[in-house]
Amino acid sequence: MNAPHTDADFADWFAERARVNDQRVETIPFSALSGWEFDGTTGDLRHHTGRFFSVRGLRVREPGSPTVGGGGPREWSQPIIHQPEIGVLGILARTFDGVRHYLMQAKAEPGNVNGVQLSPTVQATRSNYTRVHRGGSVRYLEHFTDRRGRVLVDVLQSEQGSWFLHKRNRNMVVETDDDVPVEDDFRWLTLEEIRALLHRDNVINMDARTVLSCLPRPHPAADGRDGPGHAWATSSAALGPDQGALLSLTELSSWFTDAKTRCDLTADLVPLTGIAGWRRTPTEITPEYGGRFRIIAVDVTAPHREVPHWTQPMLAPCAPALAALLYRTIGGVPHFLVQAQVQEGCLDKLEIGPTVHCLPDDHHDRPPYLDVLGSLAPDRIRYDRVQSEEGGRFFAAENRYVIAELDEDFPTEVPPRHCWATLGQLKELLRHSHYLNIEARTLVACAEALR
Amino acid sequence: MNAPHTDADFADWFAERARVNDQRVETIPFSALSGWEFDGTTGDLRHHTGRFFSVRGLRVREPGSPTVGGGGPREWSQPIIHQPEIGVLGILARTFDGVRHYLMQAKAEPGNVNGVQLSPTVQATRSNYTRVHRGGSVRYLEHFTDRRGRVLVDVLQSEQGSWFLHKRNRNMVVETDDDVPVEDDFRWLTLEEIRALLHRDNVINMDARTVLSCLPRPHPAADGRDGPGHAWATSSAALGPDQGALLSLTELSSWFTDAKTRCDLTADLVPLTGIAGWRRTPTEITPEYGGRFRIIAVDVTAPHREVPHWTQPMLAPCAPALAALLYRTIGGVPHFLVQAQVQEGCLDKLEIGPTVHCLPDDHHDRPPYLDVLGSLAPDRIRYDRVQSEEGGRFFAAENRYVIAELDEDFPTEVPPRHCWATLGQLKELLRHSHYLNIEARTLVACAEALR
Repeated sequence: MNAPHTDADFADWFAERARVNDQRVETIPFSALSGWEFDGTTGDLRHHTGRFFSVRGLRVREPGSPTVGGGGPREWSQPIIHQPEIGVLGILARTFDGVRHYLMQAKAEPGNVNGVQLSPTVQATRSNYTRVHRGGSVRYLEHFTDRRGRVLVDVLQSEQGSWFLHKRNRNMVVETDDDVPVEDDFRWLTLEEIRALLHRDNVINMDARTVLSCLPRPHPAADGRDGPGHAWATSSAALGPDQGALLSLTELSSWFTDAKTRCDLTADLVPLTGIAGWRRTPTEITPEYGGRFRIIAVDVTAPHREVPHWTQPMLAPCAPALAALLYRTIGGVPHFLVQAQVQEGCLDKLEIGPTVHCLPDDHHDRPPYLDVLGSLAPDRIRYDRVQSEEGGRFFAAENRYVIAELDEDFPTEVPPRHCWATLGQLKELLRHSHYLNIEARTLVACAEALR
Repeated sequence: MNAPHTDADFADWFAERARVNDQRVETIPFSALSGWEFDGTTGDLRHHTGRFFSVRGLRVREPGSPTVGGGGPREWSQPIIHQPEIGVLGILARTFDGVRHYLMQAKAEPGNVNGVQLSPTVQATRSNYTRVHRGGSVRYLEHFTDRRGRVLVDVLQSEQGSWFLHKRNRNMVVETDDDVPVEDDFRWLTLEEIRALLHRDNVINMDARTVLSCLPRPHPAADGRDGPGHAWATSSAALGPDQGALLSLTELSSWFTDAKTRCDLTADLVPLTGIAGWRRTPTEITPEYGGRFRIIAVDVTAPHREVPHWTQPMLAPCAPALAALLYRTIGGVPHFLVQAQVQEGCLDKLEIGPTVHCLPDDHHDRPPYLDVLGSLAPDRIRYDRVQSEEGGRFFAAENRYVIAELDEDFPTEVPPRHCWATLGQLKELLRHSHYLNIEARTLVACAEALR
């Protein structure tokens, strides 16, 4: 195991891992994919074994309801990634000298703009962890399949609801007392060190961010092994999530239930061939006009990986999105302005998202609070970093994540789709599935990293 | 409003409401249905307007996994009720003389074996509560659509996962301070009175039971407006749900997450025509061999209702099921043995069910703990009543609900699909959707009614 280390240690190690895990990723025509094919009938793009994932069509209908202010009926179709299985994102924890450390992995993914990012100890598919003969290729997996240590986190959380259909992963943190061998690509880091790295662009990968967001809040009276943390992260943990909150958790849940009840969006899988508004060229499936993403194919050479060469389809966003969480202090307690966000690929269609989540250059669809964010003085921006989405499915999917403070006289009256919640309440909801979407979870992890 | 009243008052009122709401229900051939038809292509049974619900086909596949001990692959098809909208089940509360009362409705449903049962204040469909011009036919609805009072409960909960596809209703309790006119079929009852009625067969309907199960636990230090309650219901409320529990809520959630992750059942809508193992006669859609339910058609005459005559399809179970919750005291605290129960129609396939849920006369499939229940001395049976499932869709669907106490030396080691949870933990999970299934919720309501 590695001893506590300095920043320079880390930088050297991370640079070394990036060199060792060097990869080459090239876009290729679909015809150059090996093992992947368009189904003769449906046009769905799938692997000939039926494994991994497929790209299918999704038809979305939203009849519209005059009472939610959402306007008239809408209907559209789009490609969507279909990968119904549940994978494991697991971080192994262990306490050294009274300080909890987390075993992070330097992992290259073909979609990463910068090669290697820090990922959870384990990213495993269902077939990895349900097979009878365990072990094999995924290192440290047994800590999560057997749950032998103390389970700190174990909850299903959704992933990108506009790109994935019903995708969830099992977010886990398991604490062990065993001596664990540290393999080359792995390193023990404290929560403080990981949070410092969240202040850099594209270092902590999406899978790590979502697991971190689910970590229980340190109880001030209890262990303190994660260090002091930001005052937000601890101030009310001992007093329950409703402490100092504008709305009780019951009222917050009621707002969420009301939004779900009013959501009348339906989404059905349809053949990918001929979905309206999209066309397939030799190299991409692309919107005929504008649009948010394309489906492409890549060829990956990664000499250090178990499988050193492969091809696969990927989803490539057309532009970075903005995900911003605004907050203001109410009664001395920071309250985050969250949004009931409808996403067609979510299992239950609607989860809690950031205040603003949009393509900032889309002038046709300027969501509430985008202009408020734009009008804030620079010193109100508490966090502003570019982070990437999952590099195994998404190609160069960088988004801008912002946390900004509103004036103390900013109206607490908000439109029905928005609601105020304290960090303690969001963390309480993160103990359960299907409340906070992936962008909101990244922003919770970043909010906890604020100094 | 009605003043506090005696038991005899209630009995007189309830008998009177049964007389007034008298109805005649007759089974008829499908060809005598008015407005309902079998789709020419799919054979699905639906209303010509597309409203209400439809009966469709569901194909279920369970590949089976050697690691869960579930045996080999299984595949079957069945009819299923498809009613994707979310309705409201709302109970209005108001405090009189320091005691909280709940406005209950004497409501006849065609499937009820005894005509009238006590239901929530409001049972409304989505179209009722999203329409711009409110009011109209559903009395008291505005208290739930506007959420003007104190919201005590507001959560989506699932309904029968073997009979309904993805059906949820919004379970609500709203407390008002307004003077509320009490219409003929309505009556204010205390929680103590309602719980006493849970000790009779078929008085408190399913919709009322599920809403009651979601009521927050009375906090001993707080209001006390619901009366003293059973010691179980209050003992640890002030100390959090983990007080005295064998497993922490995090460990309980981890057990649940693990079971979900291992569940590989898929369920897809298919045309009702020609589903394997079922045949359609002029009067029913029935399993070719054995089976759990049939689809029938009924003609209803209910002179007191707004629509005094109609026809509709219903689902008629072939035999009563047994739903039993076993408990034992561990460290002085009762622990309930719950089961991770896979149900094909559930949105997420798996929820927490009773210890045993089965057709007790099915000798081919005797689940764990059925024989344990059978071996218990009669004085161990704390609750044993027949209660009905929803009478608007299910015809004479009576189930036997049992709560029984195990010996104090009963092994705490249980198979992976089962787990021990305190009442406080189950109540905490009931603040959220998709944890406890409808049978478990009925049993929680009954457990809280134990004296």
